[in-house]
Amino acid sequence: MSQPRTLGQIAERYGLDLHGDPELSIDGVGTLRGAGASQISFLANPAYRAQLAHCRAAAVVLREADRAAAPGAALVSANPYAAFARIAAEFVPRQAHPPGIHPSAAVDPEATIDPSAHIGAHCSIGARTQIAPGAVLGPGCIIGPDCVIGVDALLVARVTLVTRVRLGARVIVHPGAVLGADGFGIAMDQGRWLKVPQLGGVVIGDDCEIGANTTIDRGALDDTVLEDDVRLDNQIQIGHNVRIGAHTALAGCVAVAGSVQIGRYCLIGGGAGIAGHLSIADHVSIHAMSLVSHSIRTSGTYASGTALEDAASWRRNMARLRRLDQFVRRSGAARKATE
Amino acid sequence: MSQPRTLGQIAERYGLDLHGDPELSIDGVGTLRGAGASQISFLANPAYRAQLAHCRAAAVVLREADRAAAPGAALVSANPYAAFARIAAEFVPRQAHPPGIHPSAAVDPEATIDPSAHIGAHCSIGARTQIAPGAVLGPGCIIGPDCVIGVDALLVARVTLVTRVRLGARVIVHPGAVLGADGFGIAMDQGRWLKVPQLGGVVIGDDCEIGANTTIDRGALDDTVLEDDVRLDNQIQIGHNVRIGAHTALAGCVAVAGSVQIGRYCLIGGGAGIAGHLSIADHVSIHAMSLVSHSIRTSGTYASGTALEDAASWRRNMARLRRLDQFVRRSGAARKATE
Amino acid sequence: MSQPRTLGQIAERYGLDLHGDPELSIDGVGTLRGAGASQISFLANPAYRAQLAHCRAAAVVLREADRAAAPGAALVSANPYAAFARIAAEFVPRQAHPPGIHPSAAVDPEATIDPSAHIGAHCSIGARTQIAPGAVLGPGCIIGPDCVIGVDALLVARVTLVTRVRLGARVIVHPGAVLGADGFGIAMDQGRWLKVPQLGGVVIGDDCEIGANTTIDRGALDDTVLEDDVRLDNQIQIGHNVRIGAHTALAGCVAVAGSVQIGRYCLIGGGAGIAGHLSIADHVSIHAMSLVSHSIRTSGTYASGTALEDAASWRRNMARLRRLDQFVRRSGAARKATE
Repeated sequence: MSQPRTLGQIAERYGLDLHGDPELSIDGVGTLRGAGASQISFLANPAYRAQLAHCRAAAVVLREADRAAAPGAALVSANPYAAFARIAAEFVPRQAHPPGIHPSAAVDPEATIDPSAHIGAHCSIGARTQIAPGAVLGPGCIIGPDCVIGVDALLVARVTLVTRVRLGARVIVHPGAVLGADGFGIAMDQGRWLKVPQLGGVVIGDDCEIGANTTIDRGALDDTVLEDDVRLDNQIQIGHNVRIGAHTALAGCVAVAGSVQIGRYCLIGGGAGIAGHLSIADHVSIHAMSLVSHSIRTSGTYASGTALEDAASWRRNMARLRRLDQFVRRSGAARKATE
Repeated sequence: MSQPRTLGQIAERYGLDLHGDPELSIDGVGTLRGAGASQISFLANPAYRAQLAHCRAAAVVLREADRAAAPGAALVSANPYAAFARIAAEFVPRQAHPPGIHPSAAVDPEATIDPSAHIGAHCSIGARTQIAPGAVLGPGCIIGPDCVIGVDALLVARVTLVTRVRLGARVIVHPGAVLGADGFGIAMDQGRWLKVPQLGGVVIGDDCEIGANTTIDRGALDDTVLEDDVRLDNQIQIGHNVRIGAHTALAGCVAVAGSVQIGRYCLIGGGAGIAGHLSIADHVSIHAMSLVSHSIRTSGTYASGTALEDAASWRRNMARLRRLDQFVRRSGAARKATE
Repeated sequence: MSQPRTLGQIAERYGLDLHGDPELSIDGVGTLRGAGASQISFLANPAYRAQLAHCRAAAVVLREADRAAAPGAALVSANPYAAFARIAAEFVPRQAHPPGIHPSAAVDPEATIDPSAHIGAHCSIGARTQIAPGAVLGPGCIIGPDCVIGVDALLVARVTLVTRVRLGARVIVHPGAVLGADGFGIAMDQGRWLKVPQLGGVVIGDDCEIGANTTIDRGALDDTVLEDDVRLDNQIQIGHNVRIGAHTALAGCVAVAGSVQIGRYCLIGGGAGIAGHLSIADHVSIHAMSLVSHSIRTSGTYASGTALEDAASWRRNMARLRRLDQFVRRSGAARKATE
């Protein structure tokens, strides 16, 4: 559990500029609205600036520009969200994951499990799978044959790695995620679908995080790859043979079709879709619910879709849109006629 | 199992106006097309009115306005769908859920389980979790530490509550749902992502229903909250610190980003998305697959997206749409030139 | 494991026209880029034709028109993707699924399991459920009461069939899929939602494949039905009482609302949505992320949504779109005024 510490100790440890009493005792973190007199809060999103005036926190982590508005002590940082993340980590209750294998787990005799790893209740571990030191598998994880789980990886609970999945060090996978299921490979042949064998694997780099109920298919022939520090939210679908560059983040419910290449440091908004076989450059941002239907060669921000309207206006505008081509043609003809 | 009863008994129990033989024996329910001579059917959606003429049911629950078209007996109600729901509930086969803990379940010694609760095969219950009287956990449920499961709650099977999740009375959760996983909190810091600790919980009010493979993240600092009687279909994603007002219903595959506030009695269509930090008033309806990109202050119906067309017309109109701004500017210039 | 064989044997077995040395020994398959000197590759998608020149594979399966560009041996086929699928299947490592029931499985005494079926660790099988010869249930599958699993069906791992689900012969279901959960039936009644009992089942025809974390709800009264050879990718949602015709394929993240009828040989693009109670004819293709908001009576290709643009252009065009109706009205008035 968290141990009380002082504001001065926290400022020093994280290199923050303290304006306030260094002896103030701190025992937790909270929101601008909810933090109490011994908690630290933060202001990063300008939308919440108005809440600062009524904040009762011991101190607020914020930018220099917001310091004057702080009602109490201030911890100044150029990146208040990151500074707050570090401070908050001090107060996370540590869950005990004692080394060893729960008696209800079913472990293949050909699996190799480091004695420092934790294997929870009702886990199932397949042949030739290797589990590295410090790895934690919460209850109900199913790890098929020929997988590798890296050092200090955390599979929270009920994660499935089907086969040939390799997780790097410190990877976190949330419940319900399925990695290494067959990609969607089907060929039409004389009026029936023929299943195309999926023989590749999945390779997840170090420090990646995979959200709840996200699915990442194994490659058809080569592997599906996430480079280091890729962050996937919940319910994302990654097709076979996709490659995602380091430090790219995908928000919830994004769907990436097969053989897509996404660059480094991209930000893909929630519910966006990327059609198959496309390439996306580094440092590309995609708006929520956009469909990427062609490759993107230049970094920048891209969008598709239309703006929200009240349904009556929307219906009128959409009726016009369905005749837009015709309207533009007639306008050109009319203009010529009046010229 | 269902016990035969008469049409008259059913009409009386549910306060329906019977036009037909009260002695008719009833042993089940069915569709307008499929119901047999001892079953009750219903007509609520006008799209199915044409099927009424050929219906062979013992009786049809319908509005007074449709009564004349009923070929047999009629049970008249101002709300036929609700009346039918009540009648159908009489004929649901009851599944036996005997009290007690299946020997294969792994229960933490610090958990508190009421003796009347049912804990199915391969369940896992964490420390300090409390399970109230009458609660049913089907097979394969994983309940982490510090959770509360309310009176008569039903977790059908394979539900995961990660940590600090509180379910109200009579809550129903369908298989594959994950409640209380970490929200998607990441801060960019010197070229790498830093995980922002997620310390809050999830609070689900009484009488809520959560669909299969739906995910509800725990709050970052405060809790994620569903008020009473909220209904979520399958594969919905609810981000951290969302609050959903009582009696609101979300259809399948809706994605709600973090810190969104949705009012009471809202209806969110399937596949719709709601961007982060927005507020939506009470009594708002959103069309399927719309993106809510700004707060909605007034009750009403809203939409985005375009209408379905054959692909050739769609391509022509979209080519025009991409030059719409340019076209409007030129039109203005042309008009001025001719004025 | 795969046994080496010769190019000539492969050409003969699959009826391919070989241009090259029939004695060449083959031990696997690979991509145009990755295949080594004893592997077979293929060219089906013209986008990858440029890779042919540098391919080091023993032979490439391709169309006659591409044969001249092959640097080595060629196996000519009118349908190279299907031919390759058949060849690749020769080299799939067979996973052992010995007949019998894992000691950790929980099997209801009223269930009937063929002795040749494989029931993996931590499975749970409900009352009156029947499992046919050759069926394989990987670890963690939960099969509720009154289900039927067909001959040689493969439930990879952690599949849930809630109740009254019937799978045909050779059906494949990937991890996390949930079949037979309650459909989303709710009726508003005096300010509260009333649950409408869901009494139907799910019927899956022969040779269907169901992707990871896909959900298929049971019918309200009648069944939800997939005819033979329907192929569903990951994270698809199928509402209650949907019927999907034979040989239709749905890409990832499609959402089909309740009571929709989809024809045979349809192709539904990723992330598309289909509104409730609609009918779609045979041989219809839908673009990715389109919303089908009316029934489709004629085979063909359909789309909705707008094209991806850089965000600045997109914003300008969308601002114009929101005033399109007004603009068109004014244009008409202006034209009349100048006539």
